Amino acid sequence: MSFIQNLQAAWAHNNSLLCVGLDPDLAKFPAHLREDPDAIYQFCTAIVDATADLVCVFKPQIAYFAGESAEEQLEALIDYIHLNYPHIPVILDAKRGDIGATAAQYAREAFERYQADALTVNPYMGFDSIEPYLAYPDCGLIVLCRTSNPGGSDLQNLEVRVDAKEGKKLYQHVAQLVAEKWNPHGQAALVVGATFPQELTDVRKLVGDMPLLVPGIGAQGGDVQATVSAGKTVAGAGLMISASRSILYAGKGEDFAEAARKVALATRDEINSHR
Amino acid sequence: MSFIQNLQAAWAHNNSLLCVGLDPDLAKFPAHLREDPDAIYQFCTAIVDATADLVCVFKPQIAYFAGESAEEQLEALIDYIHLNYPHIPVILDAKRGDIGATAAQYAREAFERYQADALTVNPYMGFDSIEPYLAYPDCGLIVLCRTSNPGGSDLQNLEVRVDAKEGKKLYQHVAQLVAEKWNPHGQAALVVGATFPQELTDVRKLVGDMPLLVPGIGAQGGDVQATVSAGKTVAGAGLMISASRSILYAGKGEDFAEAARKVALATRDEINSHR
Repeated sequence: MSFIQNLQAAWAHNNSLLCVGLDPDLAKFPAHLREDPDAIYQFCTAIVDATADLVCVFKPQIAYFAGESAEEQLEALIDYIHLNYPHIPVILDAKRGDIGATAAQYAREAFERYQADALTVNPYMGFDSIEPYLAYPDCGLIVLCRTSNPGGSDLQNLEVRVDAKEGKKLYQHVAQLVAEKWNPHGQAALVVGATFPQELTDVRKLVGDMPLLVPGIGAQGGDVQATVSAGKTVAGAGLMISASRSILYAGKGEDFAEAARKVALATRDEINSHR
Repeated sequence: MSFIQNLQAAWAHNNSLLCVGLDPDLAKFPAHLREDPDAIYQFCTAIVDATADLVCVFKPQIAYFAGESAEEQLEALIDYIHLNYPHIPVILDAKRGDIGATAAQYAREAFERYQADALTVNPYMGFDSIEPYLAYPDCGLIVLCRTSNPGGSDLQNLEVRVDAKEGKKLYQHVAQLVAEKWNPHGQAALVVGATFPQELTDVRKLVGDMPLLVPGIGAQGGDVQATVSAGKTVAGAGLMISASRSILYAGKGEDFAEAARKVALATRDEINSHR
């Protein structure tokens, strides 16, 4: 099954549009875990076990592993998810972007070494920086479009002129490029932040039923009702609404996984109440 | 000493604007090295030893290491360069770009774990994706501006309108943002490809003496004379002209390092003949 098919099955199976982002920050870990040499793996697998029936996808953020020299724990974590929850796909959040020969190495890293089901990528270097991932048509390719951070506006909201046509925003142009040209095998999705619901509406109009990965609820403050209303497809799905810190660090004690489950459950249910 | 100061000293010390890119592709290695478990380290340190008196900077590309699970060899390689050639700075070519909390992890990865002197980053997510690196003011921050690959034109050459002013290209806007707003500590440089000399001229006019990392000569076909003429500062420097494949894989036998040295020497001298 492809990433997109797995995602659609997980939406239905868990009745959930929630993506739990796995951003393991040791400084925020419960005290009893910090001295464990496998603390990152122990923490993340506990979160996975506590939330796997509540999510449509897991999304480890590679920067948190790379900063701790924890590549082996990342490999083991993704293995663990595949083995125990084979119906839940895994997005490697790495936002890669480089020329073709280098992108081919990043594709090997994501899809062969880590066995991720999907990868986030950056569009700034254009189509040939995207093309090597198309050689893995079953894997998801999730292109940054309109990001949830304050600086996301610096470039993405600039008005651009293409072929002397009427102006549009850069992120709208990226959405159209992905929808119309960069997605020959139907493996693409887009990152569109929850902090700008009107822009989520714009992108949904441009890309039909393409899945959207939506960060920005939880710690970043995006409104759940506005996000679901702006981003859902006609069928009431099409979204991977990501929360990380608000779930991972809901508790600070030995019951951290239980606390995470409570927030994940409440978040999933709040999302569903607006579908 | 800061990255920029080290770079200026290396320009003078080695009379060179050449950057050797360390992109270790096992499939292109000499046969006698391929079975070595430390082949990447052995290959790259041999190239470093053969060219260290001919370059102003070395630039390992992290994708080639990550694709081979060779993070420890990358750490050891950068250690080796610092120990044996302390006057030659090291750029980690990783093109990172993410929200602030994640960028802080990438900064730790580059500047603390790998002890790189500079890092390449992607501007698509805007200023707060750049800001965490400013906490390391001695480290270089090399922002993608106009890249050398064919798809580089897809977004970077779009005409953008900023504040109702006359149109300019997206890469020109990025150059101005970096020169005027994103560089409070004077640690920034830009990536501008050699395949578009007119654009190199445009950027040089916008950023004064800011160093430019220029890929695209060698295997990618950029013209050396046009590149130097378009990109040099008034003082005849300001450039890190990068070549990777044309140098690394100049020879296929046990004399690969000697063959690499010959090409590096010829490239440095050709660059100097146009300064």
